[in-house]
Amino acid sequence: MSAASYFPQDIIIKKRDGGALTRDEIQFFARGVASGQFADYQATALLMAIFWRGMTPQEVAWLTDAMMRSGEVIDLNDVPGAKVDKHSTGGVGDKVSLILAPLAAACGVKVPMMSGRGLGHTGGTLDKLESIPGFRVMLSVTEFRDILRKVGAAMIGQTPQVVPADRKLYALRDVTGTVECIPLICASIMSKKLAEGIDSLVLDVKFGQGAFMKRKEDALALARAMVEVGRAAGKPVRALLTAMDQPLGRCAGHTTEVIESIECLKGRGPRDLMEVTYALTGHMLILGGAARDEADARAKMEAAIADGRALTKFREMCAAQGGDARVIDDYSLLPTAQKRLEIRAGADGAGFVSAVDALKCGHAIMALGGGRAAVTDKVDHAVGISDLIKIGEPVKPGALLCTLHVNDDTKGAKAEALVREAIAFSAQPPKSTPLIQDLIQ
Amino acid sequence: MSAASYFPQDIIIKKRDGGALTRDEIQFFARGVASGQFADYQATALLMAIFWRGMTPQEVAWLTDAMMRSGEVIDLNDVPGAKVDKHSTGGVGDKVSLILAPLAAACGVKVPMMSGRGLGHTGGTLDKLESIPGFRVMLSVTEFRDILRKVGAAMIGQTPQVVPADRKLYALRDVTGTVECIPLICASIMSKKLAEGIDSLVLDVKFGQGAFMKRKEDALALARAMVEVGRAAGKPVRALLTAMDQPLGRCAGHTTEVIESIECLKGRGPRDLMEVTYALTGHMLILGGAARDEADARAKMEAAIADGRALTKFREMCAAQGGDARVIDDYSLLPTAQKRLEIRAGADGAGFVSAVDALKCGHAIMALGGGRAAVTDKVDHAVGISDLIKIGEPVKPGALLCTLHVNDDTKGAKAEALVREAIAFSAQPPKSTPLIQDLIQ
Repeated sequence: MSAASYFPQDIIIKKRDGGALTRDEIQFFARGVASGQFADYQATALLMAIFWRGMTPQEVAWLTDAMMRSGEVIDLNDVPGAKVDKHSTGGVGDKVSLILAPLAAACGVKVPMMSGRGLGHTGGTLDKLESIPGFRVMLSVTEFRDILRKVGAAMIGQTPQVVPADRKLYALRDVTGTVECIPLICASIMSKKLAEGIDSLVLDVKFGQGAFMKRKEDALALARAMVEVGRAAGKPVRALLTAMDQPLGRCAGHTTEVIESIECLKGRGPRDLMEVTYALTGHMLILGGAARDEADARAKMEAAIADGRALTKFREMCAAQGGDARVIDDYSLLPTAQKRLEIRAGADGAGFVSAVDALKCGHAIMALGGGRAAVTDKVDHAVGISDLIKIGEPVKPGALLCTLHVNDDTKGAKAEALVREAIAFSAQPPKSTPLIQDLIQ
Repeated sequence: MSAASYFPQDIIIKKRDGGALTRDEIQFFARGVASGQFADYQATALLMAIFWRGMTPQEVAWLTDAMMRSGEVIDLNDVPGAKVDKHSTGGVGDKVSLILAPLAAACGVKVPMMSGRGLGHTGGTLDKLESIPGFRVMLSVTEFRDILRKVGAAMIGQTPQVVPADRKLYALRDVTGTVECIPLICASIMSKKLAEGIDSLVLDVKFGQGAFMKRKEDALALARAMVEVGRAAGKPVRALLTAMDQPLGRCAGHTTEVIESIECLKGRGPRDLMEVTYALTGHMLILGGAARDEADARAKMEAAIADGRALTKFREMCAAQGGDARVIDDYSLLPTAQKRLEIRAGADGAGFVSAVDALKCGHAIMALGGGRAAVTDKVDHAVGISDLIKIGEPVKPGALLCTLHVNDDTKGAKAEALVREAIAFSAQPPKSTPLIQDLIQ
């Protein structure tokens, strides 16, 4: 495929006037952004025009493909078995990847997972893994392939060779108000996932106040766009729409989430977290040919947790990536905060929990020093939230609402104020909303 | 006035979402673009968002003011008399400035005119003046002020100190598909005109196939926006909407237009050209207090032409700016093309002229070497069109349609094909459309 030569302004004008770009024009753009032939100030004008005018499914598929081909596309053909990955648009307390990867591997599919770091109020998988002493996420493709072959699951950071056009475009979008654009989000996510060498993909598209997408219809549009791009690339993709109004599970932070994930693999996971984990992993097993249907997948996953195979996979992956696997049996080997602050209900805390605002909980993590405002910020792995009360649970004055893991009293006070703001009560039990709201395929 | 500090992306997002920017935000943008605090790639995203969402009249006034203040604002308070200028959005054969400036000066207003060079198919006033041997258009502000005081009219190029933000923004707009945007066009024109130190302004906003604005409603919107900006700046502005379907007058090019302009000042100008010139100059005289109304203005202008005062002003201005004023009496001192090519009607040329496509005539001038495709191109002053037939004139096979002034046979053949394409015939006289269609004030 050769990209013809164009004037960037002609492409900008075409999109500005609502036209659909050709495959060649999109290739010229994606390559030109990386090479500099498409100047940054022209790229951002086009990004704003795309924000305004949108893109057809065909344009999004071409953009994804062109971005993917801007760098290395990992070839995993020499790794036997079905390679299936999961991607989540991110939410507070979302540690599903840490449970799902070993669980899916224990059930017979290969999980080649490349993740990003956290930015803003949602935590990143890489940061969570790095709270395990020694755990290396920056592996070479060769190491990645070897661990995948031997263990069945590997969780690494994106190598600089993968989709350079996305790094460039994302940096430009971030400073030009063109982040919240479904075609661009879709192409960004899917180009990175398709570059991993996967056979199929399960997506967790979150919506609600704690998610990137506030409105369900936007999440639905993104899910549909991503499934469509998968279809165009010949890779089956399923997307679950999940609610992110309260944090997932009872822990948020890094160490606290690692502990909660290990508890899940030990069969002691909280209900909501397991529900999402089983749903996503189940579709991975189906796509990878390791289960006939959701019931079959569920039985296999429960067995793998009950007999310890899932935990063993986590142990193997941890060791293979240089991590101290003894943490699995001794949580005190993980970074521990200086102080635990128990947040208890006051006199008004009677009746039921009606809200646990995920966004405010995310901000509490940020306040504790457990998040990043800028990509260069260091995160404190030890701080976080545990024992978080859930929507619908009964409450009495003096009841424990959560435990804050604190390394600085001022920060702790700020975080306490935020979690107190996050949690609301009602006399009657609140109407429960389903966690998993839609399956797009 | 101090500009507060903002993040460029917040301003971009506000406009992207359809908001109106504050005066401080607009100042931050206009200053930041010149200083680099507002990166080019952020400026172009904002320009596209402005293209999409538009600007309120208040925003346009603030942007004009901020752009004007990005550089030197010329102070002409020490020049006695009313300083009135004219600006045209440009069209093929539009040499009105060359006649209007000395004519208005002869009638008692001061004309401090800064013009641009031609780009594309419409000629530039500076280029036309430079076909007069020795004529200097790049004068210092001191020389400009002196000539204005002594002669009453000076016609110069924009100094680099005037409105630097516009040069930067225009260069970015040119390569990002954000040229055809009324708020940005308005701020670009008005910031430069208000920086001249004028008291009032007359605008010629052209529309039609030979003009920058193809549609009358766009021209009307631009005219209204510019009048509004003038009001906000406390400078009375009047705008005429004029049709540009056929070239203005019978000549196009540089030397040919200078000769036609001198002919006008000698009282031998073509009807359409004089109509536009009288209308625009008349409003200048009214705004400058040199005439009571249009009828009074017309009488004064006709007298100034009849008794030679307007021609004398042209002679004085020409001499003051270093030009060889003898050209006024001896056109052979102007650059002359090697060959004159008479274009005559063929067998189908019977009846009436129904169209003289101004855009195609402009392209013929370009083909002859008399235009600029890029700002760095040199123009051939000698080539051009004269004796051009006008819409509605009767025609017979063999009748002269125009004379091409040619320096290269291949280019001449190309230009001939273009003017032949431009001119159409009909059996019945075509419906005549008024040249001046609206006055906005």
